[in-house]
Amino acid sequence: MNHAVDPAALRKPLPPDLLDRLRHLLGARLTTTDAMRAHHGRDESPYDPMPPDAVAFAHSTEEVAAIVRACSDHAIPVIAFGCGTSLEGHILALHGGVSIDLSQMRDIIALHAEDLTVTVQAGVTRKQLNDAIRTSGLFFPIDPGADASLGGMAATRASGTNAVRYGTMRENTLALTVVMADGRVIKTGTRARKSSAGYDLTRVLVGSEGTLGIITEVTVRLYPQPEAISAAVCSFDSTADAVNAVIQTIQLGVPVARVEFLDANSVRAINAHDHLALPEQPLLLFEFHGSTASVAEQATQVKDIVAEHHATGFDWATRPEDRSRLWAARHNAYFALLQMRPGCRAITTDCCVPISRLAECILHTRDDCEQHAMIYSIIGHVGDGNFHVLMMVDPDDAADVAKADGINARMVTRALGMEGTCTGEHGVGMHKMDFLIEEHGVDAIDAMRAIKHALDPKNIMNPGKILRW
Amino acid sequence: MNHAVDPAALRKPLPPDLLDRLRHLLGARLTTTDAMRAHHGRDESPYDPMPPDAVAFAHSTEEVAAIVRACSDHAIPVIAFGCGTSLEGHILALHGGVSIDLSQMRDIIALHAEDLTVTVQAGVTRKQLNDAIRTSGLFFPIDPGADASLGGMAATRASGTNAVRYGTMRENTLALTVVMADGRVIKTGTRARKSSAGYDLTRVLVGSEGTLGIITEVTVRLYPQPEAISAAVCSFDSTADAVNAVIQTIQLGVPVARVEFLDANSVRAINAHDHLALPEQPLLLFEFHGSTASVAEQATQVKDIVAEHHATGFDWATRPEDRSRLWAARHNAYFALLQMRPGCRAITTDCCVPISRLAECILHTRDDCEQHAMIYSIIGHVGDGNFHVLMMVDPDDAADVAKADGINARMVTRALGMEGTCTGEHGVGMHKMDFLIEEHGVDAIDAMRAIKHALDPKNIMNPGKILRW
Repeated sequence: MNHAVDPAALRKPLPPDLLDRLRHLLGARLTTTDAMRAHHGRDESPYDPMPPDAVAFAHSTEEVAAIVRACSDHAIPVIAFGCGTSLEGHILALHGGVSIDLSQMRDIIALHAEDLTVTVQAGVTRKQLNDAIRTSGLFFPIDPGADASLGGMAATRASGTNAVRYGTMRENTLALTVVMADGRVIKTGTRARKSSAGYDLTRVLVGSEGTLGIITEVTVRLYPQPEAISAAVCSFDSTADAVNAVIQTIQLGVPVARVEFLDANSVRAINAHDHLALPEQPLLLFEFHGSTASVAEQATQVKDIVAEHHATGFDWATRPEDRSRLWAARHNAYFALLQMRPGCRAITTDCCVPISRLAECILHTRDDCEQHAMIYSIIGHVGDGNFHVLMMVDPDDAADVAKADGINARMVTRALGMEGTCTGEHGVGMHKMDFLIEEHGVDAIDAMRAIKHALDPKNIMNPGKILRW
Repeated sequence: MNHAVDPAALRKPLPPDLLDRLRHLLGARLTTTDAMRAHHGRDESPYDPMPPDAVAFAHSTEEVAAIVRACSDHAIPVIAFGCGTSLEGHILALHGGVSIDLSQMRDIIALHAEDLTVTVQAGVTRKQLNDAIRTSGLFFPIDPGADASLGGMAATRASGTNAVRYGTMRENTLALTVVMADGRVIKTGTRARKSSAGYDLTRVLVGSEGTLGIITEVTVRLYPQPEAISAAVCSFDSTADAVNAVIQTIQLGVPVARVEFLDANSVRAINAHDHLALPEQPLLLFEFHGSTASVAEQATQVKDIVAEHHATGFDWATRPEDRSRLWAARHNAYFALLQMRPGCRAITTDCCVPISRLAECILHTRDDCEQHAMIYSIIGHVGDGNFHVLMMVDPDDAADVAKADGINARMVTRALGMEGTCTGEHGVGMHKMDFLIEEHGVDAIDAMRAIKHALDPKNIMNPGKILRW
């Protein structure tokens, strides 16, 4: 898929002095091979790659700072790279420059189990973190689809299926170590659970997508592994029934840990992919965390609520293997859909609305997909009012791409009209900059731009993302 | 108590043109009487008042914007005033200027019970809000000691006794309407529960203490009123036992709604004030929210935990009147202490540390108070690692004030050495600016200052607070 701009026009070649300086600093960890540049020039969005001019593998905050200082001296862009799993073109090197790969910064710096906090290097992934802390009795709940790095998750304000109970990276990041645009290193917070000490630099940086600084260390909150976990699934005749059951669950304060919506298309794809026989109807998947008594009580409450909304096939499980069986459908949903139109790429949208408007927003978006004969499925973190449309598109068919873009644009406009947001968890990147203006208005965007100009006066931090300069 | 600076030296008189313009806009709602200026020149900190040159009572966002535009044209400071209950000199008019009083902006703009959100004008107080929404079945949990305004609570990133379960204003503010330094009005968010759409202007403004913009409307999250509430109290031989019981409660993931620590001095003062006969030992007060079964289970879990830490007199109550009796001690703690040294003023400190360091931090601070023969008590939102020392000081006795300042300074240094913060919930105001530098370091302060300069280039928004220009 093409970009609206010609990236080549925006590049200037890397100065030989800079390359020498970076090679002196990093040795073989500075590379300009085509393969490595190509790998660092794309994420999981469907757009054509935009490779950086060089890739620098950093091992420490001090190395990142030295790289940024060198690039700053030459006014050359720097783009932080974690796992490359972003979805809106966040890491594409629109203006060229140096991709700073933090994936080798994988140290667990300090686990404080007694305080329920951990500090990690930015390249630590969420699965690595949970493996490392398993014996402490704690876990880290935030789970975007990919096994993303903590630095990337902080930079994109990621969330996932547990956010309805545990919050997002916004709520769970206590402190960051950040390399600023001039190479200075700051710490944005402490390990205290709360603070009123000055401007909230942590939250300024969380979600800034590498445009204000490069996150090199992340301190997050952890949670006790629940004494008991149970899962439940049920099917509905209509999307409205499913979503209304969720609304009532949230309104009654049932502390569900997860509640995921799958539309009939998702279930159909999963049945084909996994040889299952789930009813090809809207499906809800729940997970409950707490004491043994509490998860039983939650399941009973939810069973009553969904029954009022005409649910069928309520199935409940507490043993890990049975829970895994119930949730397998969710885990494979993405790959199942990919098989519905082989050779195509998936475009994954993202919006979030107040929960009372969720059914309406999903239904209108579904109708739009149907009217345009799109191969699609709808999956939602519905407890948060957040949902995604996965659309299977032939990237070489301009009309097909335009159709998907239209569906996405109308979905966002619909969400904004319902007092929602243009992205619940994927971020802005290159592709939602105009929606961001539509959502916030030009004056709020000016305030964001003033912050960008103040913290990155040379526009070297991941330029061309979130905001136009 | 005197200030280190002479505020008169920093003032310039209000230009007659500006006064005319404001009078034309507001009529009798613009006042320059000594009494009204004096009232708007002090908060609940013990420092001498610094009155503004005029007080403007606004009724709408548009009026606030017009006032700010007028003041901006003359480079005259503006200071937002809610209820005047801040504790660190936030609203003192160090550079003179116009106090914009928002206390008459008390409309509940939009209650969306189905989405668990409400939007209010900034002058709505937390008790007014809870009264207004009572019949909806929802409540707003954040409860600083005073009946503060929502605008002021957002501006100081307030929290209180429920934060351990429900979070602070940081987590619970969804969106703000803000008048920026040039009079432009921005909305910083939507009613969606989560968003990854651009820089988090909401969190930039929450806790900015009126130095970046004036908050005129606040959208917050609400929670279902719990089906059941229970309360419990128990006493301990030692502070360490009490705090260690709390640590274990948090580590086990018992979802307590509140857990408050009162030292023996607090209990002694309350016994005298309320004619009670509580054991004059460290005391913990718990509150549990949930289903009937869940609160019973939580109380049982906590009873077991505190027993392991040698608690005595565990008393548990579910009926409202019995809960009120148990918690009366906490509600009167502040006033009870005031009576221990009539004619004096209370200086209330604030710090927050990782919970594993809490007992040590409290004990060293207690020893410091004892060594200096201070009349004091220690009260803590201990589930968060947050505590306060209330010190009774003769404001006209410089040595007494210096003693309190020393205890406070050493407490903050101690907290910072434990990876804590100089203020958990009171904010920086005029009095913690040096501690803020100590906590964050000059480079992070420079980043904050860059944001301040970018958003308020004339330094008219509550100048002299949080940061030096």
